[in-house]
Amino acid sequence: MSRQKIEVFAPATMGNISCGYDILGLALEKPGDIVKIERKEQRGINITSISGDQQQLPTNPQKNTAGVAAQKFLEEFKIDVGLEMEIEKHMPTGSGLGSSAASAAAVLFGLNKLFGQPADRKTLVKIGIQSESVACGSGHADNIAPSLLGGIILIRSIDQPDIVNIHSPKNIFITLVYPHIEIKTEEARDILPHKIKLSQAVKQWGNIAGLISGFYTEDLDLIGRSMPDHIIEPVRSKLIPGYNEVKNEALKNGALGCSISGSGPTLFAFSENRTKAYSIGKKMEETFRGNKMEANSWVSKINTKGAQEVDQQIVSSIRGEKWYTNPESCC
Amino acid sequence: MSRQKIEVFAPATMGNISCGYDILGLALEKPGDIVKIERKEQRGINITSISGDQQQLPTNPQKNTAGVAAQKFLEEFKIDVGLEMEIEKHMPTGSGLGSSAASAAAVLFGLNKLFGQPADRKTLVKIGIQSESVACGSGHADNIAPSLLGGIILIRSIDQPDIVNIHSPKNIFITLVYPHIEIKTEEARDILPHKIKLSQAVKQWGNIAGLISGFYTEDLDLIGRSMPDHIIEPVRSKLIPGYNEVKNEALKNGALGCSISGSGPTLFAFSENRTKAYSIGKKMEETFRGNKMEANSWVSKINTKGAQEVDQQIVSSIRGEKWYTNPESCC
Repeated sequence: MSRQKIEVFAPATMGNISCGYDILGLALEKPGDIVKIERKEQRGINITSISGDQQQLPTNPQKNTAGVAAQKFLEEFKIDVGLEMEIEKHMPTGSGLGSSAASAAAVLFGLNKLFGQPADRKTLVKIGIQSESVACGSGHADNIAPSLLGGIILIRSIDQPDIVNIHSPKNIFITLVYPHIEIKTEEARDILPHKIKLSQAVKQWGNIAGLISGFYTEDLDLIGRSMPDHIIEPVRSKLIPGYNEVKNEALKNGALGCSISGSGPTLFAFSENRTKAYSIGKKMEETFRGNKMEANSWVSKINTKGAQEVDQQIVSSIRGEKWYTNPESCC
Repeated sequence: MSRQKIEVFAPATMGNISCGYDILGLALEKPGDIVKIERKEQRGINITSISGDQQQLPTNPQKNTAGVAAQKFLEEFKIDVGLEMEIEKHMPTGSGLGSSAASAAAVLFGLNKLFGQPADRKTLVKIGIQSESVACGSGHADNIAPSLLGGIILIRSIDQPDIVNIHSPKNIFITLVYPHIEIKTEEARDILPHKIKLSQAVKQWGNIAGLISGFYTEDLDLIGRSMPDHIIEPVRSKLIPGYNEVKNEALKNGALGCSISGSGPTLFAFSENRTKAYSIGKKMEETFRGNKMEANSWVSKINTKGAQEVDQQIVSSIRGEKWYTNPESCC
């Protein structure tokens, strides 16, 4: 007998990875969303509850990326059933961690498993891009692709989606620092320049090539040298009060590099060991607080599995631990 | 007793490698330059002969990149001797194959060997960049670096030179087609746009990331998909009569991709086997001739050794074979 229900975890993600604006993303071990999906006799998609979102997200399935993704999946594979979904958000929205993509990834992975795996993961990414296009007005993949696939993902092309798995170095630790402000992706896009200097672009693509090479060879020093972003970070960092000071604190304390996760406001830093990664996080938090901004930090490795069925480890690290403070005052 | 003379081969190179304008280059098995260097009691650098250049190049060592490179090397390591050099050029100048860089690379490699190897190859590249800066007015490295180091080279940064060896796929064959016109690098730079659209730049760096990933994973299909150049090729190809037709012929006959070597006019195509690479070359030649343009083609693999002392194999393939027609009418 086929399964009636499934519970799926899909990880938060970091779009851009410094200089790779709109083409690179990676999956985090935490945070992430958990979605329960159950088949129902009665047609229609119902989102019965959303927790952890401070009542921000719509339960109307046509306005919620998870609902839109479910609808797209059912249409794509001509599956005529009803669904009930419960969404547990374990990360803030508008934080630059791919919150909406994680919910959509969880739904797509879960439905695929529930209905006999009609798609491989890359096909799920394509459906995810389409749903993001419906839900957000434009189809990006730097969050949905790593959330579904895990690891470091290159979106070589978005017009005709071409998704490439990049080797994930085993020895990188990621410090994430979330200052409690919200940045809308749309606003963070609107402030970007329409045109850039060719000479700047050349610097940027030198760094992108260095970053990719560093990932394959696990050359942490090369990764660090390649992280400067000459185009996007100088503009977007202005939306984050105290950004330069916080970043300098990370570098001063031994981070390989530091930049903005997605469109922000979360910052990330790369380090070569866990102890350093934690202590950099504390320093960055303190610096934000010195700028009268509440912030919290945590450490994650690269999640190479992507979306998966919930297991005991996920339950304890995502649901059980108080590693992450969901701010009351924000989002 | 230390050596009195040395004979060095340094390979031709292909700057840019399609979308990697100003950051990527690779070394070819052929063509290349051979330089004989001999210590002399009497101070001063003398270029006693240059062959194969159709009397184009200056023998004045202050105006010849090989002479300038020799001078820089002697200064850098405070070596106070005289030198005599004979340069055999086995490639046309102004062809987009890094002709001047090859002569400089041969000299630097040869002097380093002659004087007890005071420098590693990457240091030689830095001296080479400085000499190119003197000889050509601006220091680029996408020819000098691969000619010295071999393989595929990333120039991540030129301001503070950062030279990265990229993995060279073993299964790539390169067709080179040289139409008998000359393009000055300077002119080919002057016609480039000063500013580009951010959206174009994103497409370009997606392809650069794909290309680098394809090199590491030896994924020829990914390499081919990543070769489109949205920024430089559309402008520079206008300097090469019949370019689009010739390129289409290459793609129609199974090339993975096709673009301009350096600033042109030489075209290159990648293929997955030698037979295909040769037949693509013949088709491209024919198409140039159909456009009333003489052209000749040859096939090379990636040269992973870089500059080296001349051996029997080099003598027979570079000096001995008539694989390459040096046009009387040109350059």
